Amino acid sequence: MSGGLQVRQDMEKERETLRTWKQRMGQELDRVLAFWTEHSHDQEHGGFFTCLGRDGRVYDDLKYVWLQGRQVWMYCHLYRKFERFHHSELLDAAKAGGEFLLRYARVAPPGKKCAFVLTRDGRPVKVQRTIFSECFYTMAMNELWRVTGEVRYQSEAVEMMDQIVHWVREDPSGLGRPQLAGAPAAEPMAVPMMLLNLVEQLGEADAELAGRYAELGDWCALRILQHVQRDGQAVLENVSEDGKELSGCLGRHQNPGHALEAGWFLLRHSIQKGDPKLRAHIIDKFLLLPFRSGWDPEHGGLFYFQDADDLCPTQLEWAMKLWWPHSEAMIAFLMGYSDSGDPVLLHLFYQVAEYTFRQFRDPEYGEWFGYLNREGKVALTIKGGPFKGCFHVPRCLAMCEEMLGALLNRPAPAPAPGARSPPAVPARRGAE
Amino acid sequence: MSGGLQVRQDMEKERETLRTWKQRMGQELDRVLAFWTEHSHDQEHGGFFTCLGRDGRVYDDLKYVWLQGRQVWMYCHLYRKFERFHHSELLDAAKAGGEFLLRYARVAPPGKKCAFVLTRDGRPVKVQRTIFSECFYTMAMNELWRVTGEVRYQSEAVEMMDQIVHWVREDPSGLGRPQLAGAPAAEPMAVPMMLLNLVEQLGEADAELAGRYAELGDWCALRILQHVQRDGQAVLENVSEDGKELSGCLGRHQNPGHALEAGWFLLRHSIQKGDPKLRAHIIDKFLLLPFRSGWDPEHGGLFYFQDADDLCPTQLEWAMKLWWPHSEAMIAFLMGYSDSGDPVLLHLFYQVAEYTFRQFRDPEYGEWFGYLNREGKVALTIKGGPFKGCFHVPRCLAMCEEMLGALLNRPAPAPAPGARSPPAVPARRGAE
Repeated sequence: MSGGLQVRQDMEKERETLRTWKQRMGQELDRVLAFWTEHSHDQEHGGFFTCLGRDGRVYDDLKYVWLQGRQVWMYCHLYRKFERFHHSELLDAAKAGGEFLLRYARVAPPGKKCAFVLTRDGRPVKVQRTIFSECFYTMAMNELWRVTGEVRYQSEAVEMMDQIVHWVREDPSGLGRPQLAGAPAAEPMAVPMMLLNLVEQLGEADAELAGRYAELGDWCALRILQHVQRDGQAVLENVSEDGKELSGCLGRHQNPGHALEAGWFLLRHSIQKGDPKLRAHIIDKFLLLPFRSGWDPEHGGLFYFQDADDLCPTQLEWAMKLWWPHSEAMIAFLMGYSDSGDPVLLHLFYQVAEYTFRQFRDPEYGEWFGYLNREGKVALTIKGGPFKGCFHVPRCLAMCEEMLGALLNRPAPAPAPGARSPPAVPARRGAE
Repeated sequence: MSGGLQVRQDMEKERETLRTWKQRMGQELDRVLAFWTEHSHDQEHGGFFTCLGRDGRVYDDLKYVWLQGRQVWMYCHLYRKFERFHHSELLDAAKAGGEFLLRYARVAPPGKKCAFVLTRDGRPVKVQRTIFSECFYTMAMNELWRVTGEVRYQSEAVEMMDQIVHWVREDPSGLGRPQLAGAPAAEPMAVPMMLLNLVEQLGEADAELAGRYAELGDWCALRILQHVQRDGQAVLENVSEDGKELSGCLGRHQNPGHALEAGWFLLRHSIQKGDPKLRAHIIDKFLLLPFRSGWDPEHGGLFYFQDADDLCPTQLEWAMKLWWPHSEAMIAFLMGYSDSGDPVLLHLFYQVAEYTFRQFRDPEYGEWFGYLNREGKVALTIKGGPFKGCFHVPRCLAMCEEMLGALLNRPAPAPAPGARSPPAVPARRGAE
């Protein structure tokens, strides 16, 4: 067999693998969505039940605001991006969720602070002194505007965004956290990550808002990049506001899944900016590094938490394998590959996807388990709970389906002579 | 062999087992104390490091106020009750811990609210909107008064106690929790438990304070008893203030270790009151019931959390085995046996003690591991952390050593004809 024939056969085999994965992603997305549309809609009060047992039964009717906002976002996003989800059942449920949020999320309107969890009929149960309920509220409202065209949703989104930016960059006192003399001025990576995600959400195909938030987006990227510490050898979850390592467990805390999620947020941002050096840095520090240190060599899967000095974390769940870091890793590696063409990233995508589909999927009742022990055994049988809703799994499946489709639609190239090994699918800028 | 001879031989064998356990408890207590005196004293600032790795190395220098108060209490208590611990090293360390608390625990003196965690040099890092830092502060101050005779410690204890009682029974607004329309008026069992423990602490050999808090003690006992729900078939961790089951996960939440700890608090209280019917009820509902439902039939050990409907709890660590429920169970069963003479309780004590000494002890570096996975494998190698300090293990060992000593000092009885099986050691009232 000639060398040229061999290369073509390898490429065809690789395309076949991509096609198979695209099909699996699509089928799984349908199954996962069916689980949520069947079990989570509260027909009486609007909004969504998210405390769902293995078979979908509601085991608690509390409504967690993060998950309400995320499900509205997810439904609208699928409705908008996928023809097969462009149907009124999904849109109506999203609108009912949006109306529930509009009516009940804020603890003391017209104040913008939102609750963390509400009763089934919308009375506040708990408030967090963070920005996250408000961020998911904003994502929901912006997507609702995109699919309905109703300006009131967009006004809500933009006003809430302004409030969040004010809390983060000007004055956090409205969040209600006490100022304590010993509390370090720590920045959790979650804050600039979440804001960058909002900048990208609001700026999508919207030149005015993209311009308005351009400086904010760059600020977020810079702040996230400050979490790369120790001469580039570790991504730390908390750093000081001027980008220094903090002392103790707080400073050494690592969250590989978060680093990978930040990685694809940053990569998407830098693809838009067209900065190849930055993109290589992001792939190195936010994709490869967290995977190398965070993947369990013994049992597979990503650890939930780690300590940068390899000391024992104090979180009881540190060695557990959670669904969302694996969802984020799949997105990150496929996006990294789409951007760079580096086959190492494609094979990491396969490695994570194989582990994830094997360990987290529930072939019997649909959706994924969320919480495995270190060895990969299901530790909690719930499908939804206070922190797991209709979001990470379908977002991952939808984005992977789209990215795999885009890869398959690229024209087959001649093998690139300079590549480490012939990339099965060539690099392309701005794959998404 | 005559029946009488057989009974005497069985009794001697049982006494031999009790002697062996007493010796193990004493030796282990010495070893555990040595670990803390060697590794945890902050010679510079006073107080204690509690974030200690497997070998005792300090991995974080934050000072958790619960654990500062508990260690002061533990040191004083041992100094006061055990001749071999009646030495100035322990007393000086306790006083240094007490002075650290006096100087730094309160967030905004003269206000009484205490921090949850302080920097090494005493600046507040976090405040919890609960009563527990203040409760351990009170325990520490009362014991310091008992061993030093210095009245300023007792004034601190009594003033703080009054503040706590005010927060619990009159007006919780000083704790800083927001009033939210959807938040159920739930009573965590921890609150009356902790208060009952304080009543017993302050009232020990102190007729004036015992009288002053007598009504409070009865109120606490009544409130704890309200957590027995479902026709006596379950102890629920949270109930409404008028003693009804709450809806959802919050209402179904169970914590077997907490029920067992409440059990021996209640038992101690009711032994003082001399109410045999109540004591039998406590043994049945707070000792036997939580053990029966909370002991893992597959791998041994007590589950950390459970759901009263046998649904999957939402806490990631629900199936883990923690050191403190096992410490509390050992105390509870030995106290129950000392009071009732029921050999079932003695054998449960042996069962828990054997599991605990086998699984939690670290023969290499001393002290106990705190956190095992469901199967009993060490999940966290730390010996101390934000919630584990010098308290549950030595309190358990000290109390068991004392109770075993008291059992061995009882005169050997003639077999009681009415007992289910001849109790190896007879029932005695007020064993402690």
